[in-house]
Amino acid sequence: MVMGLAVVDGKYFLSYEQIHATIRKLAQDIREDGFDPDVIVAIGTGGYIPARILKTFLKKPILTVGISYYGPDNKPAKTPRMIQWIDEVEKKLAGRKVLLVDEVDDSRVTLEYCLRELLRHGACEIAVAVLHNKNKEKKGKIPQEIRRYFAGQELEDRWICYPWDAEDIEEHQKTARSLKGPNGPNPGAAFTATV
Amino acid sequence: MVMGLAVVDGKYFLSYEQIHATIRKLAQDIREDGFDPDVIVAIGTGGYIPARILKTFLKKPILTVGISYYGPDNKPAKTPRMIQWIDEVEKKLAGRKVLLVDEVDDSRVTLEYCLRELLRHGACEIAVAVLHNKNKEKKGKIPQEIRRYFAGQELEDRWICYPWDAEDIEEHQKTARSLKGPNGPNPGAAFTATV
Repeated sequence: MVMGLAVVDGKYFLSYEQIHATIRKLAQDIREDGFDPDVIVAIGTGGYIPARILKTFLKKPILTVGISYYGPDNKPAKTPRMIQWIDEVEKKLAGRKVLLVDEVDDSRVTLEYCLRELLRHGACEIAVAVLHNKNKEKKGKIPQEIRRYFAGQELEDRWICYPWDAEDIEEHQKTARSLKGPNGPNPGAAFTATV
Repeated sequence: MVMGLAVVDGKYFLSYEQIHATIRKLAQDIREDGFDPDVIVAIGTGGYIPARILKTFLKKPILTVGISYYGPDNKPAKTPRMIQWIDEVEKKLAGRKVLLVDEVDDSRVTLEYCLRELLRHGACEIAVAVLHNKNKEKKGKIPQEIRRYFAGQELEDRWICYPWDAEDIEEHQKTARSLKGPNGPNPGAAFTATV
């Protein structure tokens, strides 16, 4: 069990505030480790929100890469596909320190794919920062050239409900906060927490 | 005065929930107006979070453009500069319906710049969606080819404190919520609201 996180029907529910606070701590870890990136590269679309919040604390520009698990025929694919890459990559990345950001390290396949693409373009150092790492067997590998890996939180292998995916944000935030706060679980919450 | 928004020291304070709910309404407006984009283009970095939330409701892919008001010498510039553009733009945008997204329409200069860039690349229709429009005299113009403009909220010309820029997210959210809720202003709030 991860302390302080709501688990409902076997899924994690995270509030915007929890995520923002985790990213503040992640930025602190990155600084304390002595890594000072020139640029943040956000993996789209999961990395957009974590990267934008991280920018508040690290104060670095963001470039993005767009990844899709759907082929051009809109059918699900097993391997990721770039839908947007950085223009003039050599100019942007050669000799620079890059912080690659995504929301979750799940199978690690997307991260490996993006890291190998970035390595081909001559960045002088690349580090990884993910909001969450799921503790599970990984299909992808972090290439050995990558020496720094930061995770905001280590989670069990459960589905994660992020606030930005919520249709009803008030309900989502209430659920996410239900196991938090000085008074413990929200007594009015209409669900059974199965931690 | 805009109903339901906290104004402290002359600045708007917006919570993540308020923004998420505004975007849900914005998506509904876009759908009801009959605009069904093929792709969302987010202006970075302000548009990343609104665009990612909008994707939850519109279920369209996101491409990003990076804009900076700093020159290559890191000194502030008066005009925007592209720091990332979309690879193979013609292929991506030609003949497609594009929804350009940013967090705020302030001077309108960034929007005009991005709209003119998009128009050059043969999109068949472009609409604009901003989370907030400030009611003020605009330096930039929406080109006449653009027929659809959606704003989640119309605001007075005040500084807007977005949650993703907060160093202390708990304090920010408390402030943003201080004029909301069934019980009105938070009696414990340590400030004077000057609406």
